[in-house]
Amino acid sequence: MELFYSKNISQGICSLDAEESNHCIKVLRHRRGEIINVVDGGGTLYKCEIMEDSPKGVTFNIVERIDNYGTHSYRLHAAVAPPKNIDRFEWFAEKATEIGIDEITPLFGEYSERKVFKGERVERLLISAAKQSHKGAIPTLNEAVTVKDFILAHSSAVTATSSTPVTSAPWDGITRLICYCDEVESLGLSHKITINQALARGAKDVMLMIGPEGDFSRSEITLALQNGWTAISLGESRLRIETAALVAVSSVYIANI
Amino acid sequence: MELFYSKNISQGICSLDAEESNHCIKVLRHRRGEIINVVDGGGTLYKCEIMEDSPKGVTFNIVERIDNYGTHSYRLHAAVAPPKNIDRFEWFAEKATEIGIDEITPLFGEYSERKVFKGERVERLLISAAKQSHKGAIPTLNEAVTVKDFILAHSSAVTATSSTPVTSAPWDGITRLICYCDEVESLGLSHKITINQALARGAKDVMLMIGPEGDFSRSEITLALQNGWTAISLGESRLRIETAALVAVSSVYIANI
Repeated sequence: MELFYSKNISQGICSLDAEESNHCIKVLRHRRGEIINVVDGGGTLYKCEIMEDSPKGVTFNIVERIDNYGTHSYRLHAAVAPPKNIDRFEWFAEKATEIGIDEITPLFGEYSERKVFKGERVERLLISAAKQSHKGAIPTLNEAVTVKDFILAHSSAVTATSSTPVTSAPWDGITRLICYCDEVESLGLSHKITINQALARGAKDVMLMIGPEGDFSRSEITLALQNGWTAISLGESRLRIETAALVAVSSVYIANI
Repeated sequence: MELFYSKNISQGICSLDAEESNHCIKVLRHRRGEIINVVDGGGTLYKCEIMEDSPKGVTFNIVERIDNYGTHSYRLHAAVAPPKNIDRFEWFAEKATEIGIDEITPLFGEYSERKVFKGERVERLLISAAKQSHKGAIPTLNEAVTVKDFILAHSSAVTATSSTPVTSAPWDGITRLICYCDEVESLGLSHKITINQALARGAKDVMLMIGPEGDFSRSEITLALQNGWTAISLGESRLRIETAALVAVSSVYIANI
């Protein structure tokens, strides 16, 4: 079953853009009167009858609406430092979409080698990955931000100190996880816990941060821990950025099945 | 830190092959008297002093030996049906090595579209991925086999029936997991459990099977369940073969940290 994407369908515009129309008519050879499946990128699938089978602009009537199509039972926002090789970030975005993710934010850290991020290609990959894996919702790709700005925009009221680990403090329901290689002990703060221990507390609404090749800086880590983020370990293997990010996404997914 | 690979070092042969020698001398410009790190692919790292710095055949003396270098605390054997697009299998092999895996077996199922598998490229990828992720052991790539032969070669004494689910039968210590899309109920057998439920019983010695695009056949599934394999679910997302395999490998890894 092939899905088409129309970002304006929820506003009542019943047509496909030129690229989708061409694919529908020229490649898949659909014709007037046939039923096609169109997603709005927001989570809804529409079953639609083709009215005009033009390869430049297919028009259709909606015959059925299915909400929460291919949805998942959790909310996940991953902020990931794009590696030098941008293909690896694209690969992560594609696989994370297939597994189930809601938001992706590219991060620039103090030790990032990459300081520029262009989102157009990733946007297109997210659309095709969502269609391919039969998801009505396309993950949101946010503008790239610095680690510090991301932490300040996503802090919780809870603050950790060396005497009160964040896992025993009051909690706003969002599990904020920062994965890094440096040892927390050297910062005079509590030990890291494993991602599974952190998700056992709550896996329904998760934010996670994966740093650049050079890791997060001490001041970035300290800021995160002061703003309600939990330091977690992804084990002893030396994982590349995109692998670490996918292991974390996969852990959230599995914790919710 | 760069690792070199020498498959004969454990037999006392202290030299690099032509490709590794060229990389060591021409690319990295190491010279006589310098210390290089050589892995044997079996789990041991050797610190070696270069004696002859020839780009055609570096020779060295072993000065230190570190066993279980970059090892993991579990044993994992994944049998995966190679998808039509072989790049996707190679990608899985590379990422699984980075995370931690011991054996990979390509599977041919009744519904496999791909009936031929050439291992040379995957072998090379396993070596480079192990070196890249600082692992002394290179995963074993087995010959491709049919699903039925694989099950019969890896059956346990335990057999499941509809009245005694495999999870409550006596157990030989190996967690055998078969992931498939078909509903077990239609086979008149017990419900699938989640991979986390299965791993909670034992995650130290795991075998898992991921089937082809067309899924396992009914007779393959029945044979597996009769031979001590547990039917597991990887959740509701429609995962490609290589993504399902990586989610499963990632789950075993995370269950052991």
